[in-house]
Amino acid sequence: MKVSAGNLLQKINYPSDLKQLKEEELKQLSQELRQYIIDIVSVNGGHFGASLGVVELTVALHYILDTPYDQLVWDVGHQAYGHKILTGRRDIFDTNRVYGGISGFPKRSESEYDTFGVGHSSTSISAALGMAVASQYKGETNRQHVAVIGDGSMTAGLAFEALNHAGIENSNLLVILNDNNMAIDPNVGALKEYLTDISTSKPYNRFRDDIARMLSKISSYGPDAFKMAKKIEKSIKGTLLKKSNLFEALQFRYFGPIDGHDVEHLVGVLRDLRDIPGPKLLHCVTVKGKGYALAEKDQTKWHAPGLFDKITGEIKKAVYDKPQPPKYQDVFGHTIVELAEKNDKIMGITPAMPSGCSLNIMMKAMPNRAFDVGIAEQHAVTFSAGLATQGLVPFCNIYSSFMQRAYDQVIHDVAIQKLNVVFCLDRAGFAGADGATHHGAYDLAYMRCIPNITVSAPMNEEELRNLMFTAQQQNMGPFVIRYPRGNGVMVDWQRPMKAIPVGKGRKVCDGEEVAILSIGAIGNEVVKACSQLNTEGYHPAHYDLRFVKPLDEALLHEVFTNFDKVITVEDGCLQGGMGSAVIEFMSDHNYHAQVIRLGIPDKFIEHGEQPELWAECGFNATAIATQVRNVAVNRTTQTIAS
Amino acid sequence: MKVSAGNLLQKINYPSDLKQLKEEELKQLSQELRQYIIDIVSVNGGHFGASLGVVELTVALHYILDTPYDQLVWDVGHQAYGHKILTGRRDIFDTNRVYGGISGFPKRSESEYDTFGVGHSSTSISAALGMAVASQYKGETNRQHVAVIGDGSMTAGLAFEALNHAGIENSNLLVILNDNNMAIDPNVGALKEYLTDISTSKPYNRFRDDIARMLSKISSYGPDAFKMAKKIEKSIKGTLLKKSNLFEALQFRYFGPIDGHDVEHLVGVLRDLRDIPGPKLLHCVTVKGKGYALAEKDQTKWHAPGLFDKITGEIKKAVYDKPQPPKYQDVFGHTIVELAEKNDKIMGITPAMPSGCSLNIMMKAMPNRAFDVGIAEQHAVTFSAGLATQGLVPFCNIYSSFMQRAYDQVIHDVAIQKLNVVFCLDRAGFAGADGATHHGAYDLAYMRCIPNITVSAPMNEEELRNLMFTAQQQNMGPFVIRYPRGNGVMVDWQRPMKAIPVGKGRKVCDGEEVAILSIGAIGNEVVKACSQLNTEGYHPAHYDLRFVKPLDEALLHEVFTNFDKVITVEDGCLQGGMGSAVIEFMSDHNYHAQVIRLGIPDKFIEHGEQPELWAECGFNATAIATQVRNVAVNRTTQTIAS
Repeated sequence: MKVSAGNLLQKINYPSDLKQLKEEELKQLSQELRQYIIDIVSVNGGHFGASLGVVELTVALHYILDTPYDQLVWDVGHQAYGHKILTGRRDIFDTNRVYGGISGFPKRSESEYDTFGVGHSSTSISAALGMAVASQYKGETNRQHVAVIGDGSMTAGLAFEALNHAGIENSNLLVILNDNNMAIDPNVGALKEYLTDISTSKPYNRFRDDIARMLSKISSYGPDAFKMAKKIEKSIKGTLLKKSNLFEALQFRYFGPIDGHDVEHLVGVLRDLRDIPGPKLLHCVTVKGKGYALAEKDQTKWHAPGLFDKITGEIKKAVYDKPQPPKYQDVFGHTIVELAEKNDKIMGITPAMPSGCSLNIMMKAMPNRAFDVGIAEQHAVTFSAGLATQGLVPFCNIYSSFMQRAYDQVIHDVAIQKLNVVFCLDRAGFAGADGATHHGAYDLAYMRCIPNITVSAPMNEEELRNLMFTAQQQNMGPFVIRYPRGNGVMVDWQRPMKAIPVGKGRKVCDGEEVAILSIGAIGNEVVKACSQLNTEGYHPAHYDLRFVKPLDEALLHEVFTNFDKVITVEDGCLQGGMGSAVIEFMSDHNYHAQVIRLGIPDKFIEHGEQPELWAECGFNATAIATQVRNVAVNRTTQTIAS
Repeated sequence: MKVSAGNLLQKINYPSDLKQLKEEELKQLSQELRQYIIDIVSVNGGHFGASLGVVELTVALHYILDTPYDQLVWDVGHQAYGHKILTGRRDIFDTNRVYGGISGFPKRSESEYDTFGVGHSSTSISAALGMAVASQYKGETNRQHVAVIGDGSMTAGLAFEALNHAGIENSNLLVILNDNNMAIDPNVGALKEYLTDISTSKPYNRFRDDIARMLSKISSYGPDAFKMAKKIEKSIKGTLLKKSNLFEALQFRYFGPIDGHDVEHLVGVLRDLRDIPGPKLLHCVTVKGKGYALAEKDQTKWHAPGLFDKITGEIKKAVYDKPQPPKYQDVFGHTIVELAEKNDKIMGITPAMPSGCSLNIMMKAMPNRAFDVGIAEQHAVTFSAGLATQGLVPFCNIYSSFMQRAYDQVIHDVAIQKLNVVFCLDRAGFAGADGATHHGAYDLAYMRCIPNITVSAPMNEEELRNLMFTAQQQNMGPFVIRYPRGNGVMVDWQRPMKAIPVGKGRKVCDGEEVAILSIGAIGNEVVKACSQLNTEGYHPAHYDLRFVKPLDEALLHEVFTNFDKVITVEDGCLQGGMGSAVIEFMSDHNYHAQVIRLGIPDKFIEHGEQPELWAECGFNATAIATQVRNVAVNRTTQTIAS
């Protein structure tokens, strides 16, 4: 079903068309753009609230700026749907986040209007500053460079590092702080409270008002007093309003807060700012989900609600006639509470993903033991290390691709000191529709090279629970558990937990001629492949390694003693990953099997459903079965059909 | 030569002894402690200026706090020599940074007074907050948690993330900002300028004074005016002094700035602060190198000056009777200028290591093209990415172990977008006396799993220059060049540069039976080994891979076709490193050689001179030669002696 755009919007293919509109038409255009986003996202899915919140800002920016010559960087990019629609992608916007379609984030290879590829948060100021400094170097004095960043993204250290540098570069940089009080979940931290303070005009405005009132009284004491009062007022305005602001302290000129939904006012302000050189920050207050009542009300739920009926607001859920396996996320969320009830040393930490990783279950049940530290992966890890020095057992849950942000902290603050921090790497393997920026492709490789660390991955819900149980025991040292986004395979998952010996894999099924070694939930594709192969007379053995580090050497000796054809399967990069660990073992012990390593090849994989991407990379059940057929010579005769 | 401690210091083995002193004795103790540090460092080497700068603070903290029950975290740890001397390590302090001796940084395994292992900057607030939150959870209400952090370290994002979180936790945390205006080089950035502003009392104090003067004038207009003036004063004090401060904005109670060299005043202030709950920041102004005139004057030079004559201040340099090869650092520094003179697209970026990595040469020669962005590795990379989007070619120089801080930025902001950023990874391999936290052990493993990236390492100065020349060509994409700390091997290094084909290794010497593959400067140990082996009749071939990614497949086919005994040598971790890449190739192409992989084993290696550590890990020339002897069967008869 093709969604049609409103009267104004349908004429706008590029910002050059937008510029033909009169200022008073921008309000209507904003409404049409908002409606178009609602129409498409309700039937296609995707991120929702963030783009609704910046509709007016998007329109105003493209109206005033000379994009793409002027450079606009969207932080994270959840909010850039309006930008995409106004910059040549209106009619293909229904392919958003679909396999083979456009990306859900700005992407340089997709459009010259997408100046910087995003996905992870808080990169925009650094990137825009780089562009601004380049322009300055090239003498492009009138070129504008704008970073649009949310208050949630502003909590990450990278953003602060960029502000600290930008403040001393005299380049033409405008940071627009899109302050909606939200990350995916409500934003947290001192900065957020500070921004709320300014936006709600206390104590600043109250102070200013108080002083003004008092000074006016003083003025009444005579002409000298009047003069003196004016002088005081001027001094307060000069210093207080300048240096009292956190951003002014970092040498940005601060403007705002202003209403980010008043498009005509925005246009005026942006026009003025264009002529002010140096680093400046415009504080825009917006409402996430603006214009869709339900989304304004429950902003976390409507961050990315899936498909919904745009009239009733009913979110469409698949209906099943029997119970379905749970999400790994929920298994984590319920299990940490279950464990923490018995082990008072357990604490939970998430950097701004309480609903995404389901730590919100623990935050509700045990608020003094579960922490959302904001978008701050580095701090999440080192804070966990601090807790662990006191004998506590923090479960630090970070998406696999976001853990790249805290790599040094894992090595330097946790692993060197052998601290008992449990790292739950959610979204390991393919993240799905979020694409290349979000796939957890490298964790097995970048974690297994670190000494003192245990690296594991469960094949199903029960294994996840048992690994969590194992990891919370005392003196386990740093313990990684990686698991994928989405549903598991067991309906009956809430079984009693037991410890797993560290570094012990398991045999999933006996077999002959070919051994398949898998790690983690992708092992279920191996199970499917084996099941198909068995019907054809092939009987590969299947081992679930469970641990990439330490390796199960006894298991591997068994494999290489009994098999000279080995296939490794992982939903991680082939360079340095699990298969690589297996052939290191093989080489170190002078075995000489033929090893076929299946996994993510040496390129960035775009967005799509997990099964689509497994197929693309050649390690879904079908592809695994093909590999077995290719190397196997023997088939048991009795099962060969026809 | 044993250095003797002063009268007071020699009686102090632990802080319990320190507490026996009278407050008025602390000044003398501080002088003795300072002298002891000067005495030892001048003959032993190590970090110097930082510890001199916090002598009084160290004495005051251990005098007031009940360490180790109260928890003291030193950021980075350069400055913790005084702390070590006062906490049981006075008499072994002369083993500081020596192979087998105590670490140059606080280290949990070394002392219970070292609450958190450090080395990299900006971890202290996160770690101390973790400890404080743990205490709060356990009901240890009077336990103190103190992080001492420099203004340089405060620029890193991790510190900001921690402040943002700490501001909303009501835990007992004191952050002491040791403001000396320096990192190793002079500190940079807006925050530094802000701190200077407050410390030098402008415009705050001037503003306060102005207002006070004006108000007193107003007071003279009568009793009503007097009353009103008082009211205004109160309002200004309440709001301005509270909320106008950057740290107050983040919900810390701010105290200071105070003189960090007045030990009695410090004692008084720390005693008072002990009773104030919640997050608080004490701003101490100190002088790096305090008490040693030359170190106060040239703070960068005296950060870690090496051995020196403590009387004359003459820094001892080894004297050679012939020219010595240059440091790789200086080759980098001079070569980037040479290249930048011809290629106006080249820019230089360092996160706070201009003198360490020698980018200071370019900063001096081309100030508008070379940037010290402060301790901010993440921003350094994403800022470089921003520059690269504009067609510039940034050389982003980051120590290998510090690059762990910017891992996500390399993947997400550079590699996915195939941007032409050149990463010069200095201090790759063993960093030497700095130890486990600073060794560049993992870079080959964590970089080679990233798509789109070139990963190289030069074996000598000429190769470094040629790789830099190669990398600055257009459209090379992300390009890593890793090289070690210290001197190269070529006196005559300033040769004309030429491009190296990407992914092409080279044969260093022909040979038979055994092939040795090396990457980077450790290849010179292979050369030495071969030279010894040749005298014994062994003739291994030696190949310098140059690139771990892309691999030189032709070279590897040649090796595996002609040799069934292969030794790989790298000064990086064995898990997932170069040797692992080589056996991935071998396995993928069904070769079955015996491969012996030499490199850093799966544990953290402590401090020591590079040759000591190579020997420990079994890949110095002697160990390599032994490996060859062990696997080789053939020796040419003519060279067998006796």
